[in-house]
Amino acid sequence: MNQAPKPPYYAVIFTNVRTDFEPGYAETADRMVALAAEQPGYLGFESVREGKDGISVSYWRDLESIKAWKAVSEHAAAQNAGRETWYKSYTTRIALVEREYSFEAEEDSL
Amino acid sequence: MNQAPKPPYYAVIFTNVRTDFEPGYAETADRMVALAAEQPGYLGFESVREGKDGISVSYWRDLESIKAWKAVSEHAAAQNAGRETWYKSYTTRIALVEREYSFEAEEDSL
Repeated sequence: MNQAPKPPYYAVIFTNVRTDFEPGYAETADRMVALAAEQPGYLGFESVREGKDGISVSYWRDLESIKAWKAVSEHAAAQNAGRETWYKSYTTRIALVEREYSFEAEEDSL
Repeated sequence: MNQAPKPPYYAVIFTNVRTDFEPGYAETADRMVALAAEQPGYLGFESVREGKDGISVSYWRDLESIKAWKAVSEHAAAQNAGRETWYKSYTTRIALVEREYSFEAEEDSL
């Protein structure tokens, strides 16, 4: 997550298990990442997948931004398609980031 | 995350990039997952790795539980070793989970 603001801000933690159904998934996922980045209050996005298991975290300025993004019609359609085809299960958690700390190795220590 | 309580509770979001250094990593990671599960206030753990990129989320009852776990000596030693050898960079975010919702596909729809 680049250019992260200082807390407090919000994180949406999306943990999921995919089905075996592939058609449309990658394109829709890419499109949603691009579309989210255009939304007011968007701060960043990180996503990792290991086989069927995925964890994605998006960062937002406030609850209003998250609510507005959830309601964007193309996003709502993707969520519906996700429940019908791409996801076996998922949990979405809305969480207020209170503090953060980062580490970066010095170049010559690697 | 099994047997999740109702919010509010805390999430520790650990996003990281590994180095190429492997010795000791898998054993230490497994040991930390087991050790965390023994701590007071521990609620659950989810982790996904895709190549060098990882996202792990642990869930805790309150800030006191997180603080106590951070200070457990074997965990503190693992954190030091992580900075010295296994991680190129990471960010830890402490976040208060305010709400959550889950989806599970019906068996016969898969």
